[in-house]
Amino acid sequence: MENCSLLLLKPRERIISTARELFRKCGLRGIGVDAIAEAAGTNKMTLYRHFGSKDELVCECLRDVARDVEEMWKEVEAAHPGDYAAQLHAWVRIGAECASSNDGRGCDMANAAVELAETDHPARQVIEEFKRKQRDRLVQLARDAGAADAELLADTLVLLLEGARVSRQSVGAEGPCAHFIASAEAVIASFLHRSGKAVTALKHVAKAKAHA
Amino acid sequence: MENCSLLLLKPRERIISTARELFRKCGLRGIGVDAIAEAAGTNKMTLYRHFGSKDELVCECLRDVARDVEEMWKEVEAAHPGDYAAQLHAWVRIGAECASSNDGRGCDMANAAVELAETDHPARQVIEEFKRKQRDRLVQLARDAGAADAELLADTLVLLLEGARVSRQSVGAEGPCAHFIASAEAVIASFLHRSGKAVTALKHVAKAKAHA
Repeated sequence: MENCSLLLLKPRERIISTARELFRKCGLRGIGVDAIAEAAGTNKMTLYRHFGSKDELVCECLRDVARDVEEMWKEVEAAHPGDYAAQLHAWVRIGAECASSNDGRGCDMANAAVELAETDHPARQVIEEFKRKQRDRLVQLARDAGAADAELLADTLVLLLEGARVSRQSVGAEGPCAHFIASAEAVIASFLHRSGKAVTALKHVAKAKAHA
Repeated sequence: MENCSLLLLKPRERIISTARELFRKCGLRGIGVDAIAEAAGTNKMTLYRHFGSKDELVCECLRDVARDVEEMWKEVEAAHPGDYAAQLHAWVRIGAECASSNDGRGCDMANAAVELAETDHPARQVIEEFKRKQRDRLVQLARDAGAADAELLADTLVLLLEGARVSRQSVGAEGPCAHFIASAEAVIASFLHRSGKAVTALKHVAKAKAHA
């Protein structure tokens, strides 16, 4: 815990920051509100005043994760304005970094879905909304990059990244997740290549029609 | 719980069967040994006599999962003896069935790795060994099927399946996991196609040499 920087935050932010770190390290069910409050330099009363319940604290932590990912998208767009293929490749590289992160704990959202087996847990809505939004965003990016079948390409990439992050947790960094970039790039190449072929085919059709 | 069929089992098997079902439904940390013993029609004393601890019960349940998967491989081989491409397609179809299973709880092994964040939990060795074996088996199958790059193909398929099962848990059956078969088959086609090209290229080289 970086206590020095934590002390600069307000209690609410300090609790979220601490809870995110501890939930990630111990699992949502591996740590209680007492330990979180203590690590955040506050107490259970204050935690409950801000969040009402542990479930709501979990939801707020996941919303905070979503805000970080939103920032990531903005950075990717700013780094490659209008170059959608470059944005797609940047997404792969950032995904690889997440998958191989030192703590090896993968995606907070997906992990939460595994841990919160109850279908009526309030966090499930946060997770589902987040995952849908990520998927839609990737479909749009694949479409903008001119992929042959943008939905299938986006879903394939989503599955590869989800797989890399969960595989990292069960078999380590040297397992299949080590191939994430190669897998994702091969898939992208195959879809953009097919798309290129389609464009060439269309040009041929157009030419043939002009000559007819 | 199918109590009638459960009663035909010996206590040890009854506990494993019940624990597997309850761990899957509630998560490893969402259910205690008391509830498992009661649901298995026995008591905590008997459970501890057979397994020593909840951790060891978890390990034994995961070893039981591994035995089921071993059976699956035998069935795939028996259904398509010597036809490795057909075995690869059968693996995809069985994977799709797992990913879209009604309870939507994905892979017991991967879920356990997510839940058991402690790196020293005894189950981690069972999980890692299992996942390594599955991966090696798929590499061998991809090689036997004549894939261009068997390791990359196998790892890509592993990531897709892991991804499908974890994505199913966070965003449901209509999410990216609905595309698992299409994604996996596109990837297989691309690798076997590339391999076909390589074979054709080699034939051309051989022909050219014969004429030289």
